[in-house]
Amino acid sequence: MPLLDQNRLFPVEDRTRALTREIYDGIKDLPIISPHGHTDPSWFALNENFPDPARLFVTPDHYVFRMFCSQGIDLATLGVPRADGGETEQDPRKIWQVFAENLYLLRATPSYIWLNHAFQETFGIKTPLNGETAGEIYDHIDACLKTDAFKPRALYDRFNIEALSTTEMALDDLKHHKTIAESDWNGKVISAYRPDNVIDPEFEGFTDNIAQLGALTGENTATWQGYLNAHRARRAYFKQVGGVTSSDHGHPTARTEDFSPQVANELFQKALKGTCTADEADAFRGHMLTEMARMSLDDGLTLQIHAGSHRNHSAPMMAQFGRDKGFDIPSKTEFVNNLKPLLNAVGMERDLTVILFMLDETTQSRELAPLAGVYPALRLGPPWWFHDSFEGMKRFRENTTETAGFYNTVGFNDDTRAFCSIPARHDVARRVDAGYLATLVATGRLNVNEAHEVAQDLTYNLVKKAYKL
Amino acid sequence: MPLLDQNRLFPVEDRTRALTREIYDGIKDLPIISPHGHTDPSWFALNENFPDPARLFVTPDHYVFRMFCSQGIDLATLGVPRADGGETEQDPRKIWQVFAENLYLLRATPSYIWLNHAFQETFGIKTPLNGETAGEIYDHIDACLKTDAFKPRALYDRFNIEALSTTEMALDDLKHHKTIAESDWNGKVISAYRPDNVIDPEFEGFTDNIAQLGALTGENTATWQGYLNAHRARRAYFKQVGGVTSSDHGHPTARTEDFSPQVANELFQKALKGTCTADEADAFRGHMLTEMARMSLDDGLTLQIHAGSHRNHSAPMMAQFGRDKGFDIPSKTEFVNNLKPLLNAVGMERDLTVILFMLDETTQSRELAPLAGVYPALRLGPPWWFHDSFEGMKRFRENTTETAGFYNTVGFNDDTRAFCSIPARHDVARRVDAGYLATLVATGRLNVNEAHEVAQDLTYNLVKKAYKL
Amino acid sequence: MPLLDQNRLFPVEDRTRALTREIYDGIKDLPIISPHGHTDPSWFALNENFPDPARLFVTPDHYVFRMFCSQGIDLATLGVPRADGGETEQDPRKIWQVFAENLYLLRATPSYIWLNHAFQETFGIKTPLNGETAGEIYDHIDACLKTDAFKPRALYDRFNIEALSTTEMALDDLKHHKTIAESDWNGKVISAYRPDNVIDPEFEGFTDNIAQLGALTGENTATWQGYLNAHRARRAYFKQVGGVTSSDHGHPTARTEDFSPQVANELFQKALKGTCTADEADAFRGHMLTEMARMSLDDGLTLQIHAGSHRNHSAPMMAQFGRDKGFDIPSKTEFVNNLKPLLNAVGMERDLTVILFMLDETTQSRELAPLAGVYPALRLGPPWWFHDSFEGMKRFRENTTETAGFYNTVGFNDDTRAFCSIPARHDVARRVDAGYLATLVATGRLNVNEAHEVAQDLTYNLVKKAYKL
Repeated sequence: MPLLDQNRLFPVEDRTRALTREIYDGIKDLPIISPHGHTDPSWFALNENFPDPARLFVTPDHYVFRMFCSQGIDLATLGVPRADGGETEQDPRKIWQVFAENLYLLRATPSYIWLNHAFQETFGIKTPLNGETAGEIYDHIDACLKTDAFKPRALYDRFNIEALSTTEMALDDLKHHKTIAESDWNGKVISAYRPDNVIDPEFEGFTDNIAQLGALTGENTATWQGYLNAHRARRAYFKQVGGVTSSDHGHPTARTEDFSPQVANELFQKALKGTCTADEADAFRGHMLTEMARMSLDDGLTLQIHAGSHRNHSAPMMAQFGRDKGFDIPSKTEFVNNLKPLLNAVGMERDLTVILFMLDETTQSRELAPLAGVYPALRLGPPWWFHDSFEGMKRFRENTTETAGFYNTVGFNDDTRAFCSIPARHDVARRVDAGYLATLVATGRLNVNEAHEVAQDLTYNLVKKAYKL
Repeated sequence: MPLLDQNRLFPVEDRTRALTREIYDGIKDLPIISPHGHTDPSWFALNENFPDPARLFVTPDHYVFRMFCSQGIDLATLGVPRADGGETEQDPRKIWQVFAENLYLLRATPSYIWLNHAFQETFGIKTPLNGETAGEIYDHIDACLKTDAFKPRALYDRFNIEALSTTEMALDDLKHHKTIAESDWNGKVISAYRPDNVIDPEFEGFTDNIAQLGALTGENTATWQGYLNAHRARRAYFKQVGGVTSSDHGHPTARTEDFSPQVANELFQKALKGTCTADEADAFRGHMLTEMARMSLDDGLTLQIHAGSHRNHSAPMMAQFGRDKGFDIPSKTEFVNNLKPLLNAVGMERDLTVILFMLDETTQSRELAPLAGVYPALRLGPPWWFHDSFEGMKRFRENTTETAGFYNTVGFNDDTRAFCSIPARHDVARRVDAGYLATLVATGRLNVNEAHEVAQDLTYNLVKKAYKL
Repeated sequence: MPLLDQNRLFPVEDRTRALTREIYDGIKDLPIISPHGHTDPSWFALNENFPDPARLFVTPDHYVFRMFCSQGIDLATLGVPRADGGETEQDPRKIWQVFAENLYLLRATPSYIWLNHAFQETFGIKTPLNGETAGEIYDHIDACLKTDAFKPRALYDRFNIEALSTTEMALDDLKHHKTIAESDWNGKVISAYRPDNVIDPEFEGFTDNIAQLGALTGENTATWQGYLNAHRARRAYFKQVGGVTSSDHGHPTARTEDFSPQVANELFQKALKGTCTADEADAFRGHMLTEMARMSLDDGLTLQIHAGSHRNHSAPMMAQFGRDKGFDIPSKTEFVNNLKPLLNAVGMERDLTVILFMLDETTQSRELAPLAGVYPALRLGPPWWFHDSFEGMKRFRENTTETAGFYNTVGFNDDTRAFCSIPARHDVARRVDAGYLATLVATGRLNVNEAHEVAQDLTYNLVKKAYKL
């Protein structure tokens, strides 16, 4: 029994499955466009071998270690780095053994398919990973990783990636992107402008960050106009050096505002002094989304809004292990009233693309599809994070297509730090879309020619257009 | 390839599909009861030819032009009338060409099926509409529209409509309904009592409307009792002249109140002076629902509550094009606390029928099915507006049936301004219900005889009973 | 045609159905563990015959009589006891006739399957119950009920129950559990510690209850420490006499707090005086969940939180018929912020099990699966109450498995007062799980060996572990 069923994620009824196969075969070999993700640009700049199987597959993957944590396994035994300086397991073989023994906890989760996909397709493994096979599989992967064929650039090429975007904070110097651009390698690895640390008054070190923003740009960021100019300058720098075509904004809510310069400046001054209330901080972030949208009208960057995550939910875990350790929890999100100020300002602009990502699926049919189905500037991002899964993607199409259609969506985002999961994640999206389209055909909602055309659009054309890639 | 698959919207598995066909064949030719809609009564009173294909299919259909708008097409190029006096395209052939070229944007939306249904079944068209076929199809439809067979009354008869309700505001004189009633035509076209403009303190011209309500009824509508009497008089007029069997209330929230006459009068006086806060206006609307329910106990009208639409979301579009241009967006709706005052007052009444419509699908299994599954006065309206679709109807049955059963639902409402979409919409509902019932049989949740009986109830009996038609 | 389809609730496609059958056959005869329910312990202590069919199937079953009520049938005609001393039907044959004539109202609800399951499997009935067959079926069931084979203990054994938990309030003397324990019968009927009436300041008679709690335990429950000690004493008593392994908490919201002893004591003193505001009462209940969790760390009881029911929605029905008459309605529930204080206090404890039950399905994928998928102390209870149904269970698995996996769930709870429905309810859960697992296999998300293993876990192992049975 291979690790992967070749018809995985396809509908079960024979004719629909055959149709899915036909549609999937038409898109499975299209190049991967990965317009939003979190891989490390140094991989592609330096092109060094990945260190070992545990540090490739376990230690950095919060999908994996959060599930293990939920069943009482201490993150330290998985080698997850600690913020408090405490000890963590350093032996990759020991980490791998714990991983292998507990892999069954991931059954029926997306990670299970992603991991098995990487094991089989990238590393040629045919044996299921478990406590008994752990050593042998470790050795195999470890040997692979020492070869040139498994260096980052080689994998990039083998994965058939046409363009890949990383994400850098506004103060980043983008040196790795510079290196990549200056190299003789043909891979297209660009950045995205992520200014949360100079937009969010509640971000650690906000005031210092603003000062640094001033220093980098030569603007007086103690003034509102200087601050806006500095953003413009960094966006220009990111475009020029990092090849960016989008900005990205991770906000706890979808709030937007469109204040007068006076009011905005007052909030900004409070933010600089660290005296914003929680509501004022949210208001300032919200106003800055509208400013970013206005700058997009000038420089053409696509604006991405990722809203609705309650970050670092556990205080003791934050103290012990720090950010991004699986303790970010989705929460109720409201778009209809929250987006109104931004939409009244720029929602009818045809040359602007604002992509909305959600973690609250109830907004899909109620709020987001109706909004994206009428405002020219709005597009719906693919299902995000916990919903980057078979059921999540299926619900997304079922919930949004009837109201927003296909052409207000933007293809797939893998959003990953786990490089080897990229082909797996795009493959899942292609399979789900093929199955959805085949179901539409089988139930007389689309004809087969239309389905093939839409499949190309969902896989390749829409993402290129939305992200200008 | 015909425009329509004869098994469209049926489940794909063979036996379930055959069963669906059998159930569907038992209901597909039942007469259409359309108890809630927005067709123009002048069509049936005057029985004039429809002007041209564009004015029949494009200009008045906000489902169509909102999707086109979302992809950057100016509503003016589609001939949508403007509120600001600006120019719009007048040439129906040009409008039709834009429509045809962009029809693909509607793929997999309900409009796609409705339009193709009308093209094939009503106009006998066998060619898909696109930029190339636009002219030829325009000519064909245009020629049809000039004949007697395509006049409103002829279509009404051909559509096999048994009863159709339009909706008129409380101050309407119902002259078209009078003409229809006095004519020798057998069609049953009735009205519904829609008093939003004399109940909602935030409605444009509220104070003038109340004065006009007084003038029409001879009641002193400056007093609370006179105002209530005037409602009673208009309801009686609507019953007598318009044959109405229901009132309809489009409120932003589902709030109800049951104030003392003193408190109600105080709010009413504020409303007349235009000094209500937003909360007081909502409270007044909420109280009036309970008053309407009490009047229903006397005059037998079925009470319909349509809650949860955030109207005219875009300020610039409201200024340019006015109301009802696709910028009404659903928002979160709460029923459990909001309906409590009304339900404590009249919820246990067996001779009252209150039909609830929702745009927030999360309330289906959580709030509405549990409420309708216990209160004798409550019934669930069919999925509304954006959810009048295959997936929307399927989710509605799956979310509500286990808790509210079938007999607390009221059949289908087409809710349309687009006359030619009526047969298509009812056909979709019948197909979805047949498929749902067949699935219940195939999974042992209902036997086949029960399924046939329930199919008749969902299509014909429940709507007649709920609307007293 | 038998009352039950042997493949009921199985997927329809042939191979998936065959696979479901294979998985189901592997679990259908496993003993029933019923860790949370509301059967009457006196049944098993006294082992008397059930009185008659109506008092077994109709009068106590709020699922049945709420639906009949919704269609205008007076609860008094169904023999439902009244709180206001008014008359109700006493003749079980008359009640049974109304029940039989209106059974069709329950079509496609879970009750329909539960009732038919009990009729066929427990009573050997092959004829559908309706107005015509009512008398004959009444006679048959009534005759059965008079025999030893239909006494509670005999049915318990026949139902293949391994352990069953009832629920008793904190002041209960557990005399029936004592009787059962001292008898020579082998059945395992335990209790659960339900302290709502001594934790909820809004509970009728709260102050008296606290005094009684003091009297029972010899603690000074006028003080905060005495009150906590009294809880510890009752928990110990429930463990010793009632064999309890869990506590259960039915709160309107999921709010938790973790106050200092001073603040907690201030709230407690207000509660004793009856001066808590609604918010303070909620805060006190919330704080007590954290106290209960801390006690669980000492005594090992599993903590169950049932949140989100708006109780006794209808004031007139509450006055006439009292509590638990079908007028409890789910409402929006929030977990992410509400559980934070408890989770910061004890969420990372590996020896604690907190089981969350929800009535608001929107929280499944958005809040609960992400929380249970990372906190070691959290587990997800099965779909509750209105969602203890085919579609409800299916949605639960689809919404939670991808993020929380299988091993953060705890098997099935029947939660019932209707003894004869227990085998039917567990059978439904096993069928739904088998179908879900077969679908995972058919779509390549799990292999068949894994599916068999998980099926055993979901049916038997997880519930034993979570409830320490």
